Amino acid sequence: MGGKRTVETTFPVRYAETDQMQVVHHSNYVVWMEEGRSEFMRASGADYAQVERGGHYFTATGIQVRYVASARYGERVTVRTWVEELRSRQLTFGYEIVNASTGAVLVTATSEHLCIDRQGRVARIPDQWRKLLSTDH
Amino acid sequence: MGGKRTVETTFPVRYAETDQMQVVHHSNYVVWMEEGRSEFMRASGADYAQVERGGHYFTATGIQVRYVASARYGERVTVRTWVEELRSRQLTFGYEIVNASTGAVLVTATSEHLCIDRQGRVARIPDQWRKLLSTDH
Amino acid sequence: MGGKRTVETTFPVRYAETDQMQVVHHSNYVVWMEEGRSEFMRASGADYAQVERGGHYFTATGIQVRYVASARYGERVTVRTWVEELRSRQLTFGYEIVNASTGAVLVTATSEHLCIDRQGRVARIPDQWRKLLSTDH
Amino acid sequence: MGGKRTVETTFPVRYAETDQMQVVHHSNYVVWMEEGRSEFMRASGADYAQVERGGHYFTATGIQVRYVASARYGERVTVRTWVEELRSRQLTFGYEIVNASTGAVLVTATSEHLCIDRQGRVARIPDQWRKLLSTDH
Repeated sequence: MGGKRTVETTFPVRYAETDQMQVVHHSNYVVWMEEGRSEFMRASGADYAQVERGGHYFTATGIQVRYVASARYGERVTVRTWVEELRSRQLTFGYEIVNASTGAVLVTATSEHLCIDRQGRVARIPDQWRKLLSTDH
Repeated sequence: MGGKRTVETTFPVRYAETDQMQVVHHSNYVVWMEEGRSEFMRASGADYAQVERGGHYFTATGIQVRYVASARYGERVTVRTWVEELRSRQLTFGYEIVNASTGAVLVTATSEHLCIDRQGRVARIPDQWRKLLSTDH
Repeated sequence: MGGKRTVETTFPVRYAETDQMQVVHHSNYVVWMEEGRSEFMRASGADYAQVERGGHYFTATGIQVRYVASARYGERVTVRTWVEELRSRQLTFGYEIVNASTGAVLVTATSEHLCIDRQGRVARIPDQWRKLLSTDH
Repeated sequence: MGGKRTVETTFPVRYAETDQMQVVHHSNYVVWMEEGRSEFMRASGADYAQVERGGHYFTATGIQVRYVASARYGERVTVRTWVEELRSRQLTFGYEIVNASTGAVLVTATSEHLCIDRQGRVARIPDQWRKLLSTDH
Protein backbone atom coordinates (compact mmCIF):
# COMPACT_ATOMS: atom_id res chain seq x y z
CA MET A 1 0.00 0.00 0.00
CA GLY A 2 3.01 2.25 0.63
CA GLY A 3 2.12 5.91 0.32
CA LYS A 4 -0.94 5.29 -1.81
CA ARG A 5 -4.26 6.85 -0.91
CA THR A 6 -6.36 4.09 0.63
CA VAL A 7 -10.11 4.08 1.22
CA GLU A 8 -11.83 1.83 3.75
CA THR A 9 -15.33 0.47 4.00
CA THR A 10 -16.63 -1.72 6.82
CA PHE A 11 -19.74 -3.93 6.88
CA PRO A 12 -21.08 -7.05 8.63
CA VAL A 13 -20.69 -10.50 7.06
CA ARG A 14 -24.05 -11.62 5.66
CA TYR A 15 -25.38 -15.05 6.62
CA ALA A 16 -26.00 -15.83 2.94
CA GLU A 17 -22.27 -15.36 2.34
CA THR A 18 -21.32 -18.37 4.48
CA ASP A 19 -21.00 -21.93 3.15
CA GLN A 20 -21.07 -25.36 4.76
CA MET A 21 -17.45 -24.99 5.89
CA GLN A 22 -18.94 -22.44 8.38
CA VAL A 23 -16.95 -19.57 6.85
CA VAL A 24 -17.51 -17.02 4.09
CA HIS A 25 -17.46 -18.66 0.67
CA HIS A 26 -14.35 -17.58 -1.27
CA SER A 27 -16.32 -16.12 -4.21
CA ASN A 28 -17.81 -13.43 -1.97
CA TYR A 29 -14.46 -11.72 -1.43
CA VAL A 30 -14.57 -10.90 -5.16
CA VAL A 31 -17.88 -9.09 -4.56
CA TRP A 32 -16.38 -7.33 -1.51
CA MET A 33 -13.41 -6.19 -3.63
CA GLU A 34 -15.88 -4.61 -6.03
CA GLU A 35 -17.64 -2.95 -3.12
CA GLY A 36 -14.22 -1.62 -2.00
CA ARG A 37 -13.70 -0.26 -5.52
CA SER A 38 -17.14 1.40 -5.48
CA GLU A 39 -16.33 3.03 -2.15
CA PHE A 40 -12.88 4.13 -3.36
CA MET A 41 -14.46 5.85 -6.34
CA ARG A 42 -17.27 7.47 -4.34
CA ALA A 43 -14.68 8.76 -1.84
CA SER A 44 -12.57 10.10 -4.74
CA GLY A 45 -15.50 11.95 -6.32
CA ALA A 46 -15.46 9.51 -9.25
CA ASP A 47 -18.68 7.63 -8.45
CA TYR A 48 -18.70 4.62 -10.78
CA ALA A 49 -22.46 4.98 -11.41
CA GLN A 50 -21.58 8.36 -12.99
CA VAL A 51 -18.68 6.88 -14.98
CA GLU A 52 -21.14 4.44 -16.57
CA ARG A 53 -23.75 7.12 -17.22
CA GLY A 54 -20.97 9.00 -19.04
CA GLY A 55 -20.57 6.01 -21.35
CA HIS A 56 -17.45 4.31 -19.96
CA TYR A 57 -16.98 1.00 -18.19
CA PHE A 58 -14.01 -0.41 -16.29
CA THR A 59 -14.42 -4.04 -17.26
CA ALA A 60 -12.49 -6.59 -15.16
CA THR A 61 -9.74 -8.35 -17.15
CA GLY A 62 -8.10 -10.20 -14.30
CA ILE A 63 -8.20 -10.91 -10.58
CA GLN A 64 -5.68 -12.47 -8.22
CA VAL A 65 -6.82 -13.34 -4.72
CA ARG A 66 -4.73 -14.73 -1.86
CA TYR A 67 -6.82 -16.23 0.97
CA VAL A 68 -5.03 -15.93 4.31
CA ALA A 69 -7.75 -16.46 6.94
CA SER A 70 -11.52 -16.84 7.05
CA ALA A 71 -14.31 -14.40 7.80
CA ARG A 72 -17.32 -15.71 9.72
CA TYR A 73 -20.94 -14.68 10.26
CA GLY A 74 -21.16 -12.44 13.33
CA GLU A 75 -17.99 -10.55 12.35
CA ARG A 76 -17.48 -7.26 10.54
CA VAL A 77 -14.91 -6.88 7.80
CA THR A 78 -13.02 -3.86 6.48
CA VAL A 79 -12.04 -3.64 2.82
CA ARG A 80 -9.05 -1.37 2.10
CA THR A 81 -8.73 -0.32 -1.53
CA TRP A 82 -6.14 1.69 -3.44
CA VAL A 83 -5.06 2.30 -7.05
CA GLU A 84 -1.98 0.18 -7.63
CA GLU A 85 -1.34 1.42 -11.17
CA LEU A 86 -3.07 3.87 -13.50
CA ARG A 87 -2.39 3.85 -17.23
CA SER A 88 -4.12 5.52 -20.15
CA ARG A 89 -6.55 2.68 -20.84
CA GLN A 90 -6.11 0.40 -17.82
CA LEU A 91 -6.00 0.49 -14.07
CA THR A 92 -5.08 -1.94 -11.33
CA PHE A 93 -6.65 -1.88 -7.88
CA GLY A 94 -5.05 -3.35 -4.77
CA TYR A 95 -7.02 -4.66 -1.77
CA GLU A 96 -6.56 -5.83 1.76
CA ILE A 97 -9.55 -7.30 3.57
CA VAL A 98 -9.25 -7.54 7.34
CA ASN A 99 -11.35 -8.53 10.34
CA ALA A 100 -12.67 -5.15 11.49
CA SER A 101 -12.20 -5.79 15.20
CA THR A 102 -8.93 -7.76 15.35
CA GLY A 103 -7.28 -6.29 12.26
CA ALA A 104 -6.24 -9.81 11.17
CA VAL A 105 -5.64 -9.96 7.40
CA LEU A 106 -8.12 -12.24 5.64
CA VAL A 107 -7.37 -11.59 1.97
CA THR A 108 -4.92 -9.67 -0.20
CA ALA A 109 -5.83 -9.14 -3.82
CA THR A 110 -5.44 -7.18 -7.03
CA SER A 111 -7.73 -6.67 -10.00
CA GLU A 112 -7.06 -5.27 -13.47
CA HIS A 113 -9.59 -3.27 -15.42
CA LEU A 114 -9.76 -2.03 -18.98
CA CYS A 115 -11.67 1.11 -19.96
CA ILE A 116 -14.22 0.40 -22.69
CA ASP A 117 -17.02 2.44 -24.25
CA ARG A 118 -20.69 1.51 -24.84
CA GLN A 119 -19.74 -0.39 -28.01
CA GLY A 120 -17.22 -2.46 -26.06
CA ARG A 121 -14.21 -0.80 -27.71
CA VAL A 122 -11.08 -0.07 -25.68
CA ALA A 123 -11.04 3.63 -24.74
CA ARG A 124 -8.82 6.10 -22.91
CA ILE A 125 -9.90 6.73 -19.34
CA PRO A 126 -11.56 10.19 -19.54
CA ASP A 127 -9.35 12.93 -18.04
CA GLN A 128 -11.89 13.88 -15.37
CA TRP A 129 -11.78 10.36 -13.91
CA ARG A 130 -8.02 9.96 -14.42
CA LYS A 131 -7.33 12.99 -12.24
CA LEU A 132 -9.62 11.75 -9.49
CA LEU A 133 -8.16 8.24 -9.56
CA SER A 134 -4.56 9.43 -9.74
CA THR A 135 -2.30 8.05 -7.02
CA ASP A 136 -0.26 11.27 -6.88
CA HIS A 137 -2.28 13.27 -4.41
CA MET B 1 -50.09 -28.72 -11.36
CA GLY B 2 -53.24 -30.48 -12.60
CA GLY B 3 -53.33 -30.85 -16.37
CA LYS B 4 -50.94 -27.97 -16.97
CA ARG B 5 -47.95 -28.42 -19.25
CA THR B 6 -44.93 -28.76 -16.94
CA VAL B 7 -41.28 -28.45 -17.89
CA GLU B 8 -38.47 -29.96 -15.82
CA THR B 9 -34.81 -29.10 -15.48
CA THR B 10 -32.32 -30.97 -13.30
CA PHE B 11 -28.90 -29.83 -12.06
CA PRO B 12 -26.46 -30.47 -9.20
CA VAL B 13 -26.47 -28.28 -6.08
CA ARG B 14 -23.47 -25.95 -6.18
CA TYR B 15 -21.19 -25.78 -3.14
CA ALA B 16 -21.45 -21.98 -3.17
CA GLU B 17 -25.21 -22.36 -2.66
CA THR B 18 -24.82 -23.91 0.79
CA ASP B 19 -24.69 -21.94 4.04
CA GLN B 20 -23.40 -22.65 7.53
CA MET B 21 -26.56 -24.63 8.38
CA GLN B 22 -25.05 -27.22 5.93
CA VAL B 23 -27.97 -26.88 3.53
CA VAL B 24 -28.80 -24.72 0.51
CA HIS B 25 -29.42 -21.10 1.53
CA HIS B 26 -33.09 -20.23 1.06
CA SER B 27 -32.41 -17.34 -1.35
CA ASN B 28 -30.99 -19.73 -3.96
CA TYR B 29 -34.36 -21.37 -4.56
CA VAL B 30 -35.49 -18.02 -5.96
CA VAL B 31 -32.64 -18.25 -8.50
CA TRP B 32 -33.59 -21.87 -9.26
CA MET B 33 -37.21 -20.80 -9.85
CA GLU B 34 -35.93 -18.32 -12.42
CA GLU B 35 -33.86 -21.06 -14.02
CA GLY B 36 -37.03 -23.20 -14.15
CA ARG B 37 -38.80 -20.28 -15.86
CA SER B 38 -35.96 -19.92 -18.38
CA GLU B 39 -36.17 -23.63 -19.16
CA PHE B 40 -39.96 -23.51 -19.44
CA MET B 41 -39.71 -20.73 -21.98
CA ARG B 42 -36.91 -22.35 -23.98
CA ALA B 43 -38.92 -25.60 -24.09
CA SER B 44 -41.99 -23.63 -25.23
CA GLY B 45 -40.11 -21.89 -28.05
CA ALA B 46 -40.42 -18.58 -26.20
CA ASP B 47 -36.76 -18.16 -25.19
CA TYR B 48 -36.71 -15.27 -22.72
CA ALA B 49 -33.46 -13.92 -24.21
CA GLN B 50 -35.47 -13.37 -27.41
CA VAL B 51 -38.40 -11.81 -25.53
CA GLU B 52 -35.99 -9.19 -24.15
CA ARG B 53 -34.34 -8.61 -27.52
CA GLY B 54 -37.86 -7.93 -28.83
CA GLY B 55 -38.21 -5.15 -26.26
CA HIS B 56 -40.35 -6.78 -23.57
CA TYR B 57 -39.54 -7.82 -20.00
CA PHE B 58 -41.48 -9.98 -17.53
CA THR B 59 -40.53 -8.14 -14.35
CA ALA B 60 -41.18 -9.98 -11.07
CA THR B 61 -43.89 -8.33 -8.97
CA GLY B 62 -44.23 -10.98 -6.29
CA ILE B 63 -42.94 -14.32 -5.06
CA GLN B 64 -44.29 -16.79 -2.50
CA VAL B 65 -42.05 -19.64 -1.43
CA ARG B 66 -42.90 -22.50 0.94
CA TYR B 67 -39.83 -24.37 2.22
CA VAL B 68 -40.64 -28.01 2.98
CA ALA B 69 -37.25 -29.75 3.14
CA SER B 70 -33.60 -28.92 2.48
CA ALA B 71 -31.34 -29.56 -0.49
CA ARG B 72 -27.69 -30.39 0.22
CA TYR B 73 -24.42 -30.32 -1.68
CA GLY B 74 -23.86 -33.67 -3.35
CA GLU B 75 -27.52 -33.90 -4.42
CA ARG B 76 -29.23 -33.05 -7.70
CA VAL B 77 -32.49 -31.11 -7.79
CA THR B 78 -35.30 -30.99 -10.32
CA VAL B 79 -37.29 -27.79 -10.85
CA ARG B 80 -40.80 -28.31 -12.30
CA THR B 81 -42.34 -25.17 -13.79
CA TRP B 82 -45.73 -24.40 -15.28
CA VAL B 83 -47.87 -21.37 -16.12
CA GLU B 84 -50.42 -21.02 -13.36
CA GLU B 85 -52.29 -18.11 -14.94
CA LEU B 86 -51.89 -16.08 -18.11
CA ARG B 87 -53.55 -12.70 -18.49
CA SER B 88 -53.13 -9.92 -21.02
CA ARG B 89 -50.39 -8.07 -19.12
CA GLN B 90 -49.45 -10.50 -16.36
CA LEU B 91 -48.54 -14.10 -15.82
CA THR B 92 -48.08 -16.35 -12.82
CA PHE B 93 -45.69 -19.28 -12.75
CA GLY B 94 -45.98 -22.26 -10.40
CA TYR B 95 -43.02 -24.35 -9.23
CA GLU B 96 -42.20 -27.53 -7.42
CA ILE B 97 -38.57 -28.23 -6.57
CA VAL B 98 -37.75 -31.82 -5.66
CA ASN B 99 -34.74 -33.96 -4.82
CA ALA B 100 -33.95 -35.53 -8.21
CA SER B 101 -33.21 -38.99 -6.87
CA THR B 102 -35.77 -39.42 -4.07
CA GLY B 103 -38.51 -37.20 -5.50
CA ALA B 104 -38.98 -35.61 -2.07
CA VAL B 105 -40.55 -32.16 -2.34
CA LEU B 106 -38.20 -29.39 -1.15
CA VAL B 107 -40.07 -26.24 -2.16
CA THR B 108 -43.40 -25.18 -3.65
CA ALA B 109 -43.67 -21.65 -4.99
CA THR B 110 -45.38 -19.16 -7.25
CA SER B 111 -44.17 -15.93 -8.84
CA GLU B 112 -46.08 -13.12 -10.54
CA HIS B 113 -44.71 -11.15 -13.46
CA LEU B 114 -45.82 -8.02 -15.26
CA CYS B 115 -45.03 -7.37 -18.92
CA ILE B 116 -43.23 -4.05 -19.40
CA ASP B 117 -41.50 -2.39 -22.34
CA ARG B 118 -38.04 -0.79 -22.58
CA GLN B 119 -39.38 2.41 -21.03
CA GLY B 120 -40.73 0.48 -18.05
CA ARG B 121 -44.37 0.97 -19.07
CA VAL B 122 -46.90 -1.82 -18.56
CA ALA B 123 -47.52 -3.56 -21.88
CA ARG B 124 -49.63 -6.37 -23.34
CA ILE B 125 -47.78 -9.65 -23.65
CA PRO B 126 -47.07 -9.86 -27.42
CA ASP B 127 -49.33 -12.41 -29.16
CA GLN B 128 -46.44 -14.57 -30.34
CA TRP B 129 -45.33 -15.19 -26.75
CA ARG B 130 -48.89 -15.49 -25.40
CA LYS B 131 -49.62 -18.39 -27.71
CA LEU B 132 -46.43 -20.19 -26.73
CA LEU B 133 -47.03 -19.64 -23.01
CA SER B 134 -50.70 -20.58 -23.18
CA THR B 135 -51.73 -23.35 -20.81
CA ASP B 136 -54.32 -24.71 -23.28
CA HIS B 137 -52.15 -27.00 -25.35
CA MET C 1 -45.68 -1.86 11.28
CA GLY C 2 -48.08 -0.22 13.73
CA GLY C 3 -46.56 0.17 17.17
CA LYS C 4 -44.03 -2.60 16.67
CA ARG C 5 -40.39 -2.00 17.48
CA THR C 6 -38.64 -1.55 14.11
CA VAL C 7 -34.92 -1.69 13.41
CA GLU C 8 -33.31 -0.09 10.37
CA THR C 9 -30.11 -0.81 8.50
CA THR C 10 -28.85 1.15 5.49
CA PHE C 11 -26.24 0.13 2.90
CA PRO C 12 -25.26 0.84 -0.70
CA VAL C 13 -26.50 -1.35 -3.56
CA ARG C 14 -23.65 -3.57 -4.76
CA TYR C 15 -22.84 -3.66 -8.48
CA ALA C 16 -22.91 -7.48 -8.37
CA GLU C 17 -26.54 -7.24 -7.24
CA THR C 18 -27.72 -5.71 -10.53
CA ASP C 19 -28.87 -7.72 -13.54
CA GLN C 20 -29.21 -6.97 -17.24
CA MET C 21 -32.51 -5.14 -16.66
CA GLN C 22 -30.23 -2.47 -15.05
CA VAL C 23 -31.84 -2.91 -11.65
CA VAL C 24 -31.23 -5.07 -8.59
CA HIS C 25 -32.07 -8.72 -9.28
CA HIS C 26 -35.17 -9.73 -7.31
CA SER C 27 -33.40 -12.59 -5.44
CA ASN C 28 -31.13 -10.11 -3.65
CA TYR C 29 -34.00 -8.58 -1.67
CA VAL C 30 -34.29 -11.99 0.05
CA VAL C 31 -30.65 -11.62 1.15
CA TRP C 32 -31.33 -8.04 2.28
CA MET C 33 -34.32 -9.25 4.33
CA GLU C 34 -31.96 -11.65 6.10
CA GLU C 35 -29.54 -8.82 6.69
CA GLY C 36 -32.44 -6.82 8.17
CA ARG C 37 -33.20 -9.78 10.44
CA SER C 38 -29.55 -10.00 11.54
CA GLU C 39 -29.56 -6.29 12.36
CA PHE C 40 -32.88 -6.58 14.21
CA MET C 41 -31.46 -9.32 16.39
CA ARG C 42 -28.14 -7.55 17.03
CA ALA C 43 -30.06 -4.40 18.01
CA SER C 44 -32.27 -6.48 20.32
CA GLY C 45 -29.31 -8.12 22.06
CA ALA C 46 -30.23 -11.46 20.49
CA ASP C 47 -27.32 -11.73 18.01
CA TYR C 48 -28.21 -14.63 15.72
CA ALA C 49 -24.58 -15.84 15.70
CA GLN C 50 -25.03 -16.44 19.46
CA VAL C 51 -28.40 -18.14 18.97
CA GLU C 52 -26.70 -20.67 16.67
CA ARG C 53 -23.76 -21.15 19.04
CA GLY C 54 -26.37 -21.96 21.68
CA GLY C 55 -27.63 -24.78 19.46
CA HIS C 56 -30.79 -23.26 17.95
CA TYR C 57 -31.61 -22.23 14.39
CA PHE C 58 -34.49 -20.17 13.00
CA THR C 59 -34.90 -21.99 9.71
CA ALA C 60 -36.96 -20.21 7.02
CA THR C 61 -40.24 -21.99 6.25
CA GLY C 62 -41.78 -19.38 3.98
CA ILE C 63 -41.27 -16.00 2.34
CA GLN C 64 -43.65 -13.63 0.62
CA VAL C 65 -42.20 -10.68 -1.28
CA ARG C 66 -44.08 -7.88 -3.03
CA TYR C 67 -41.92 -5.90 -5.48
CA VAL C 68 -43.13 -2.30 -5.78
CA ALA C 69 -40.20 -0.42 -7.36
CA SER C 70 -36.58 -1.10 -8.30
CA ALA C 71 -33.31 -0.34 -6.56
CA ARG C 72 -30.34 0.64 -8.73
CA TYR C 73 -26.57 0.71 -8.40
CA GLY C 74 -25.51 4.10 -7.08
CA GLU C 75 -28.37 4.19 -4.56
CA ARG C 76 -28.51 3.31 -0.87
CA VAL C 77 -31.34 1.23 0.56
CA THR C 78 -32.81 1.02 4.04
CA VAL C 79 -34.25 -2.26 5.35
CA ARG C 80 -36.84 -1.87 8.14
CA THR C 81 -37.48 -5.05 10.11
CA TRP C 82 -39.89 -5.96 12.89
CA VAL C 83 -41.35 -9.06 14.54
CA GLU C 84 -44.81 -9.53 13.11
CA GLU C 85 -45.73 -12.52 15.29
CA LEU C 86 -43.93 -14.51 17.99
CA ARG C 87 -45.13 -17.96 19.00
CA SER C 88 -43.55 -20.70 21.09
CA ARG C 89 -41.82 -22.44 18.18
CA GLN C 90 -42.23 -19.99 15.30
CA LEU C 91 -41.79 -16.36 14.47
CA THR C 92 -42.73 -14.12 11.58
CA PHE C 93 -40.71 -11.10 10.53
CA GLY C 94 -42.08 -8.15 8.55
CA TYR C 95 -39.97 -5.94 6.25
CA GLU C 96 -40.13 -2.74 4.31
CA ILE C 97 -37.24 -1.91 2.01
CA VAL C 98 -37.03 1.70 0.87
CA ASN C 99 -34.74 3.96 -1.15
CA ALA C 100 -32.66 5.58 1.61
CA SER C 101 -32.70 9.08 0.12
CA THR C 102 -36.22 9.38 -1.34
CA GLY C 103 -37.99 7.05 1.09
CA ALA C 104 -39.82 5.41 -1.84
CA VAL C 105 -40.98 1.90 -0.95
CA LEU C 106 -39.24 -0.78 -3.05
CA VAL C 107 -40.38 -3.99 -1.38
CA THR C 108 -42.72 -5.17 1.37
CA ALA C 109 -42.26 -8.70 2.66
CA THR C 110 -42.74 -11.25 5.41
CA SER C 111 -40.85 -14.41 6.31
CA GLU C 112 -41.74 -17.28 8.63
CA HIS C 113 -39.19 -19.17 10.68
CA LEU C 114 -39.31 -22.33 12.75
CA CYS C 115 -37.02 -22.91 15.72
CA ILE C 116 -35.05 -26.15 15.37
CA ASP C 117 -32.18 -27.72 17.30
CA ARG C 118 -28.88 -29.17 16.04
CA GLN C 119 -30.60 -32.44 15.17
CA GLY C 120 -33.16 -30.60 13.05
CA ARG C 121 -36.02 -31.23 15.51
CA VAL C 122 -38.63 -28.55 16.13
CA ALA C 123 -37.85 -26.81 19.43
CA ARG C 124 -39.27 -24.09 21.67
CA ILE C 125 -37.59 -20.72 21.19
CA PRO C 126 -35.37 -20.44 24.31
CA ASP C 127 -36.77 -17.98 26.85
CA GLN C 128 -33.75 -15.68 26.75
CA TRP C 129 -34.31 -15.05 23.01
CA ARG C 130 -38.12 -14.93 23.32
CA LYS C 131 -37.89 -12.04 25.75
CA LEU C 132 -35.52 -10.10 23.53
CA LEU C 133 -37.60 -10.70 20.40
CA SER C 134 -40.89 -9.92 22.11
CA THR C 135 -42.94 -7.20 20.44
CA ASP C 136 -44.30 -5.96 23.78
CA HIS C 137 -41.58 -3.55 24.79
CA MET D 1 -3.93 -28.52 -20.53
CA GLY D 2 -1.37 -30.72 -22.39
CA GLY D 3 -1.94 -34.41 -21.77
CA LYS D 4 -3.81 -33.89 -18.52
CA ARG D 5 -7.13 -35.59 -17.94
CA THR D 6 -9.78 -32.91 -18.42
CA VAL D 7 -13.42 -33.07 -17.37
CA GLU D 8 -16.14 -30.91 -18.92
CA THR D 9 -19.47 -29.70 -17.64
CA THR D 10 -21.92 -27.59 -19.64
CA PHE D 11 -24.84 -25.51 -18.37
CA PRO D 12 -26.92 -22.47 -19.34
CA VAL D 13 -26.07 -18.99 -18.07
CA ARG D 14 -28.57 -18.00 -15.36
CA TYR D 15 -30.32 -14.64 -15.65
CA ALA D 16 -29.36 -13.85 -12.05
CA GLU D 17 -25.70 -14.16 -13.08
CA THR D 18 -25.87 -11.13 -15.40
CA ASP D 19 -25.17 -7.56 -14.30
CA GLN D 20 -26.05 -4.16 -15.68
CA MET D 21 -23.23 -4.38 -18.25
CA GLN D 22 -25.52 -7.01 -19.89
CA VAL D 23 -22.96 -9.77 -19.38
CA VAL D 24 -22.20 -12.32 -16.66
CA HIS D 25 -20.78 -10.65 -13.55
CA HIS D 26 -17.11 -11.58 -13.13
CA SER D 27 -17.60 -13.09 -9.64
CA ASN D 28 -19.79 -15.87 -11.07
CA TYR D 29 -16.90 -17.44 -12.99
CA VAL D 30 -15.38 -18.23 -9.58
CA VAL D 31 -18.56 -20.18 -8.74
CA TRP D 32 -18.42 -21.90 -12.14
CA MET D 33 -14.79 -22.91 -11.49
CA GLU D 34 -15.95 -24.57 -8.29
CA GLU D 35 -18.70 -26.32 -10.20
CA GLY D 36 -16.03 -27.53 -12.67
CA ARG D 37 -14.02 -28.82 -9.71
CA SER D 38 -17.08 -30.63 -8.31
CA GLU D 39 -17.68 -32.25 -11.69
CA PHE D 40 -13.99 -33.20 -12.05
CA MET D 41 -14.10 -34.96 -8.70
CA ARG D 42 -17.42 -36.71 -9.36
CA ALA D 43 -16.08 -37.91 -12.73
CA SER D 44 -12.90 -39.14 -10.99
CA GLY D 45 -14.82 -41.08 -8.35
CA ALA D 46 -13.63 -38.64 -5.70
CA ASP D 47 -16.96 -36.90 -5.01
CA TYR D 48 -16.12 -33.86 -2.87
CA ALA D 49 -19.24 -34.38 -0.72
CA GLN D 50 -17.63 -37.71 0.32
CA VAL D 51 -14.24 -36.10 0.92
CA GLU D 52 -15.89 -33.74 3.41
CA ARG D 53 -17.86 -36.52 5.07
CA GLY D 54 -14.51 -38.27 5.52
CA GLY D 55 -13.29 -35.26 7.49
CA HIS D 56 -11.13 -33.44 4.93
CA TYR D 57 -11.59 -30.11 3.15
CA PHE D 58 -9.76 -28.60 0.19
CA THR D 59 -9.87 -24.97 1.28
CA ALA D 60 -9.10 -22.37 -1.41
CA THR D 61 -5.86 -20.48 -0.75
CA GLY D 62 -5.64 -18.58 -4.02
CA ILE D 63 -7.33 -17.92 -7.34
CA GLN D 64 -6.11 -16.28 -10.53
CA VAL D 65 -8.66 -15.48 -13.21
CA ARG D 66 -8.03 -14.03 -16.67
CA TYR D 67 -11.17 -12.64 -18.33
CA VAL D 68 -10.94 -12.90 -22.13
CA ALA D 69 -14.53 -12.50 -23.36
CA SER D 70 -18.02 -12.28 -21.87
CA ALA D 71 -20.76 -14.84 -21.40
CA ARG D 72 -24.36 -13.67 -21.85
CA TYR D 73 -27.81 -14.86 -20.81
CA GLY D 74 -29.20 -17.13 -23.53
CA GLU D 75 -25.85 -18.88 -24.00
CA ARG D 76 -24.50 -22.14 -22.60
CA VAL D 77 -21.00 -22.39 -21.20
CA THR D 78 -18.60 -25.31 -20.84
CA VAL D 79 -16.16 -25.45 -17.93
CA ARG D 80 -13.05 -27.59 -18.57
CA THR D 81 -11.20 -28.60 -15.42
CA TRP D 82 -7.96 -30.48 -14.79
CA VAL D 83 -5.44 -31.00 -11.98
CA GLU D 84 -2.50 -28.77 -12.73
CA GLU D 85 -0.35 -29.95 -9.82
CA LEU D 86 -0.84 -32.46 -7.00
CA ARG D 87 1.36 -32.38 -3.91
CA SER D 88 1.09 -34.09 -0.55
CA ARG D 89 -0.95 -31.34 1.13
CA GLN D 90 -1.92 -29.07 -1.76
CA LEU D 91 -3.40 -29.19 -5.21
CA THR D 92 -3.82 -26.75 -8.06
CA PHE D 93 -6.69 -26.91 -10.52
CA GLY D 94 -6.63 -25.39 -14.01
CA TYR D 95 -9.72 -24.18 -15.88
CA GLU D 96 -10.83 -23.03 -19.27
CA ILE D 97 -14.37 -21.70 -19.63
CA VAL D 98 -15.70 -21.48 -23.18
CA ASN D 99 -18.90 -20.61 -25.00
CA ALA D 100 -20.45 -24.05 -25.52
CA SER D 101 -21.62 -23.41 -29.07
CA THR D 102 -18.81 -21.32 -30.57
CA GLY D 103 -15.94 -22.69 -28.46
CA ALA D 104 -14.69 -19.13 -27.89
CA VAL D 105 -12.57 -18.91 -24.75
CA LEU D 106 -14.15 -16.71 -22.07
CA VAL D 107 -11.90 -17.30 -19.06
CA THR D 108 -8.69 -19.11 -18.15
CA ALA D 109 -7.96 -19.64 -14.48
CA THR D 110 -6.17 -21.56 -11.77
CA SER D 111 -6.98 -22.13 -8.10
CA GLU D 112 -4.85 -23.47 -5.24
CA HIS D 113 -6.22 -25.56 -2.42
CA LEU D 114 -4.84 -26.78 0.86
CA CYS D 115 -6.02 -29.99 2.51
CA ILE D 116 -7.22 -29.37 6.08
CA ASP D 117 -9.01 -31.50 8.66
CA ARG D 118 -12.11 -30.73 10.75
CA GLN D 119 -9.98 -28.76 13.23
CA GLY D 120 -8.62 -26.59 10.42
CA ARG D 121 -5.12 -28.14 10.63
CA VAL D 122 -3.11 -28.74 7.47
CA ALA D 123 -3.32 -32.44 6.56
CA ARG D 124 -1.98 -34.84 3.95
CA ILE D 125 -4.45 -35.54 1.15
CA PRO D 126 -5.71 -39.07 2.00
CA ASP D 127 -4.25 -41.72 -0.33
CA GLN D 128 -7.63 -42.81 -1.68
CA TRP D 129 -8.29 -39.29 -3.03
CA ARG D 130 -4.69 -38.74 -4.16
CA LYS D 131 -4.87 -41.74 -6.46
CA LEU D 132 -8.14 -40.62 -7.98
CA LEU D 133 -6.94 -37.04 -8.48
CA SER D 134 -3.55 -38.09 -9.86
CA THR D 135 -2.73 -36.65 -13.26
CA ASP D 136 -0.79 -39.80 -14.31
CA HIS D 137 -3.59 -41.91 -15.69
